[in-house]
Amino acid sequence: MALMSENLIPFKKHVFVCNGESCTRNGSAAVKAKFVEELKARGLLRKKAIKGDHMCTDCSSVGFCDIGPAVLVYPDGVWYAHVQPEDVTEIIESHLIGGQPVERLVKNRVPSEEGQ
Amino acid sequence: MALMSENLIPFKKHVFVCNGESCTRNGSAAVKAKFVEELKARGLLRKKAIKGDHMCTDCSSVGFCDIGPAVLVYPDGVWYAHVQPEDVTEIIESHLIGGQPVERLVKNRVPSEEGQ
Repeated sequence: MALMSENLIPFKKHVFVCNGESCTRNGSAAVKAKFVEELKARGLLRKKAIKGDHMCTDCSSVGFCDIGPAVLVYPDGVWYAHVQPEDVTEIIESHLIGGQPVERLVKNRVPSEEGQ
Repeated sequence: MALMSENLIPFKKHVFVCNGESCTRNGSAAVKAKFVEELKARGLLRKKAIKGDHMCTDCSSVGFCDIGPAVLVYPDGVWYAHVQPEDVTEIIESHLIGGQPVERLVKNRVPSEEGQ
């Protein structure tokens, strides 16, 4: 692989929170804020000078427009739907730290089984 | 896993193009447009009623602010930097279709080797 830039540090998982119109209307900004707050409090957040090993980034619509805040965790390829701020701790503890996705909120996987 | 919603179809790879301030200033919108155009022309794009197996989504800054348009391909965890519109065909043909990342543009991987 190419040499890593010195301003890039290793990290493990990348969380995307949809900020499309519908997700925003259904509270995705609060979900994103909760991820950032909790990851930061646990020393897991990477953002500019903050050197954790998890990143949390906004993304545009992924087509879950009817079911509320979408959260994608990559490289795992786990798509959560209808995530509320009160679900964030569970996703962080069970999935990001523990490696076990929160199945009741999982809506899709990438690559999906049928797509392989 | 949870049952798939009928409006979700399988797909294989998810391309994110950074639309942060610096990437935008360095032409990321043209890179995104080129991905969408080429994926659509090849029948690979998924977007609303279009039923391809690759998605292309904007994302906010991932910290490559000094080196121009960042393109992330998940679930592969391959991060490209300084992507120009003229690189898009190669990324689609070599990486998305052929499975071989375009190494000269690879800047980081997730999870990174040091992070595992």
